[in-house]
Amino acid sequence: MNILEYTKQVKDKVDKYLAGKIAGSLEVKKLYDASYHLIGAGGKRLRPTLVVLGARIVGESEDKVIPAAASVELLHTFSLIHDDIMDRDEFRRGVPTVHKLWGESIAILAGDLLFAKAYEAMLDEEKYGIPLERILAAVKILTWIAITLAEGQTLDIEFVKRTNIGEEEYITMVEKKTAAMFKGSLAIGAILGGGENSIVERLSEFGRLIGIAFQIQDDILGITGDEKTLGKPVYSDLREGKKTIIIVHALNNASEKQRKTILTVLGNKNVTVEELRKVVEIIKSIGSIEYAAKKAKYYTLKALDILNTIPARDNKAKSLLKELATFIIERRY
Amino acid sequence: MNILEYTKQVKDKVDKYLAGKIAGSLEVKKLYDASYHLIGAGGKRLRPTLVVLGARIVGESEDKVIPAAASVELLHTFSLIHDDIMDRDEFRRGVPTVHKLWGESIAILAGDLLFAKAYEAMLDEEKYGIPLERILAAVKILTWIAITLAEGQTLDIEFVKRTNIGEEEYITMVEKKTAAMFKGSLAIGAILGGGENSIVERLSEFGRLIGIAFQIQDDILGITGDEKTLGKPVYSDLREGKKTIIIVHALNNASEKQRKTILTVLGNKNVTVEELRKVVEIIKSIGSIEYAAKKAKYYTLKALDILNTIPARDNKAKSLLKELATFIIERRY
Repeated sequence: MNILEYTKQVKDKVDKYLAGKIAGSLEVKKLYDASYHLIGAGGKRLRPTLVVLGARIVGESEDKVIPAAASVELLHTFSLIHDDIMDRDEFRRGVPTVHKLWGESIAILAGDLLFAKAYEAMLDEEKYGIPLERILAAVKILTWIAITLAEGQTLDIEFVKRTNIGEEEYITMVEKKTAAMFKGSLAIGAILGGGENSIVERLSEFGRLIGIAFQIQDDILGITGDEKTLGKPVYSDLREGKKTIIIVHALNNASEKQRKTILTVLGNKNVTVEELRKVVEIIKSIGSIEYAAKKAKYYTLKALDILNTIPARDNKAKSLLKELATFIIERRY
Repeated sequence: MNILEYTKQVKDKVDKYLAGKIAGSLEVKKLYDASYHLIGAGGKRLRPTLVVLGARIVGESEDKVIPAAASVELLHTFSLIHDDIMDRDEFRRGVPTVHKLWGESIAILAGDLLFAKAYEAMLDEEKYGIPLERILAAVKILTWIAITLAEGQTLDIEFVKRTNIGEEEYITMVEKKTAAMFKGSLAIGAILGGGENSIVERLSEFGRLIGIAFQIQDDILGITGDEKTLGKPVYSDLREGKKTIIIVHALNNASEKQRKTILTVLGNKNVTVEELRKVVEIIKSIGSIEYAAKKAKYYTLKALDILNTIPARDNKAKSLLKELATFIIERRY
């Protein structure tokens, strides 16, 4: 089974669990419909796969950590719904965003509900026979992820207003906004599986590194990707003025004239596709996309180096993690 | 020490704990400032007081449950910040709301951060020597409160669009929006204190009943209260079209003509204070405010009946709970 088939298998199990989890009484049906919307619309379930592989690599079975795997997906979906409100994004996973369909108030509440449901799912691990002290440790990680996500999204928003972001600041933001969840997912899996501290730490570091690589690849796809495959509009990072690694590199390496042209489209909602294409050509000529691809590869290789030092109880799980790390920078969606 | 002096004592301890809890690195200072804003602006700390008294009544000391008391205040503040966005409220606790000062995106994130911080605080109970199984049970209650809050706020919003709300529906909404947190706060205190199931259940029911009474009193103050004492504009429930028990009673008991007049101001943001005063006179003439006060008293008396059946390890805590129940319906703020 390759990693794509495996994520599909995890997705089936997690989604079955989630379908039972996101259900409320008739009077609040709207809230639950809104909460389930993005979950039902698709998604790769990479984060749940990390939880499951984190558990397997320390010798725990996949089936015992499905609630935890669902938990991180719930936290992820909560953050997508709230981020979409802030970024005024209209499409995600090929469907209109929650606030576009139900309005902002219900979208805020749907996010809040999923946030709480993430904890409810994690606490279900008790029924799956996981010892209490491990569950409590996993709840701590979940909480750390949530705090870090809010900080990361704050930086992402604040960076929109600035044009002098350095690569270090970008990495700090991405560590919080994206990599924390990858890191935390692996840690949760390994902790619930009873892994030793030193292994939990190395898996966490592996997760942090592939998380950074994942965001860089996301930045690349935001410019080079195909709208249909992505399920969201291309160039929206530019329109929203997001400081992706590509933009950070381009602004820091452009000529004065190029810089001015790039800044005319950044955060400009009224810009035409034609103008955006012209700016993308400039960015390409600066070498920023190539640079980003090289960076993504660098973080992936560093991650694989660490993975190699981890003794696995389940070699198949380890090789699936390797494949996953590679998939992250080769994916087109 | 009377109940007001006691809530002040709890507030001091909880606020000291909170000041240390809501602190982040310089780069995300804005997020933490926004998160701390309403906490620093005041508040009665009734919910933390319920946690502490719930623990004391089963024989646990106040100091051991301060993080849990802070936890419910954090969850409460999270919900205030998000609710204020949805309701477009501009003042709370005598200061501008978080979204008015920092914008909607940071307000959403500040709420999210406090939500996570509520869990972080609860997990701190481990350092205060509370057994793991009790902490996990408290985390479950916290999660139940959060889920129920989201459902309650959904109903509150949905009811704005409707003019045919019955009293039963109102009570269901209030049980979720307000009473769940009173109920859960007492349950958390009693559980962390190691109280028997039967006592936890009765304290929970006491909490639910005073929670309903609290909301009814809030509804009353929204019409009869003093703007300065309340820290928020009077009549905003009417302007926002909220289905308070007063409005529910008035609409269900008005003449056709009165009903029409009331409906012209409900949810009408452009209505003048003069017009609102006229409608309040109509509502008074229907007897709806009197009716609400009678209902609040009814729930308080039911709550006190239950409290009387609870054997207390700490009689002072029990009498403070009695005072608190009475304060809730006598307060002017």
